[in-house]
Amino acid sequence: MTDCIFCKIVKGDIPNMTVFENERVLAFMDINPISTGHTLIIPKAHAENLYELNEDDLTQVILASQKVAAAIRQSLAPAGIAILQLNGKGVNQEVMHYHMHVVPRGTEENPLPITSWELKPGDMDTIHKTAEAIKAAL
Amino acid sequence: MTDCIFCKIVKGDIPNMTVFENERVLAFMDINPISTGHTLIIPKAHAENLYELNEDDLTQVILASQKVAAAIRQSLAPAGIAILQLNGKGVNQEVMHYHMHVVPRGTEENPLPITSWELKPGDMDTIHKTAEAIKAAL
Repeated sequence: MTDCIFCKIVKGDIPNMTVFENERVLAFMDINPISTGHTLIIPKAHAENLYELNEDDLTQVILASQKVAAAIRQSLAPAGIAILQLNGKGVNQEVMHYHMHVVPRGTEENPLPITSWELKPGDMDTIHKTAEAIKAAL
Repeated sequence: MTDCIFCKIVKGDIPNMTVFENERVLAFMDINPISTGHTLIIPKAHAENLYELNEDDLTQVILASQKVAAAIRQSLAPAGIAILQLNGKGVNQEVMHYHMHVVPRGTEENPLPITSWELKPGDMDTIHKTAEAIKAAL
């Protein structure tokens, strides 16, 4: 896509710090990192989100994320690693080209903003009705 | 694993609200939901995290997440959907059996705690050195 910043990165029109690449995917450093080592993995072919991405590219992205996470673990020895992928402006997807975040938390770093939330039991009747609605759509 | 709550769910020893299942994976409702429709996808075979999971099960999990996300989108019409997967107690992994969160945000619901963070440019020299360390481990 002409106006897509990640397509421009794939084409080489915008510089990036690549850590892993194959025919289908590119992994490069996020320049607005949540933490040290924050990496993005994208399919080279444009797809806006998880709904649009084809199964082959999706598989290549998750397998690349496993390789990158292993390399981050080995090289940075983080306290943990979060994988995050956002679909839609309603959940703050910023670039409308599918991307998976690999976000390590260093042992000396603060808790990640994406990994801490209060665990609260939900309303079981609501959860049950929601499950039925989702099942009906599967 | 004997003491693993998700292995007990797979075995049927603990009830759950399943929305999708095949030979390799199980998708069921999180009973401590961040939002309406919060679903978990797990491999049936025990693996603690992304580092341990075999490629076939990992692929089945991500393909199941795509199906579940599409069904959530169709049935609940959320403002967006976040995919999150935590590895290690340092990033608040609560159950030590690999699980992928599929978390929709309803149009009437507050922003998800996992999807909002301040975008701040990082130090380019630090990012560059980190990239080199990760690449060396790949």
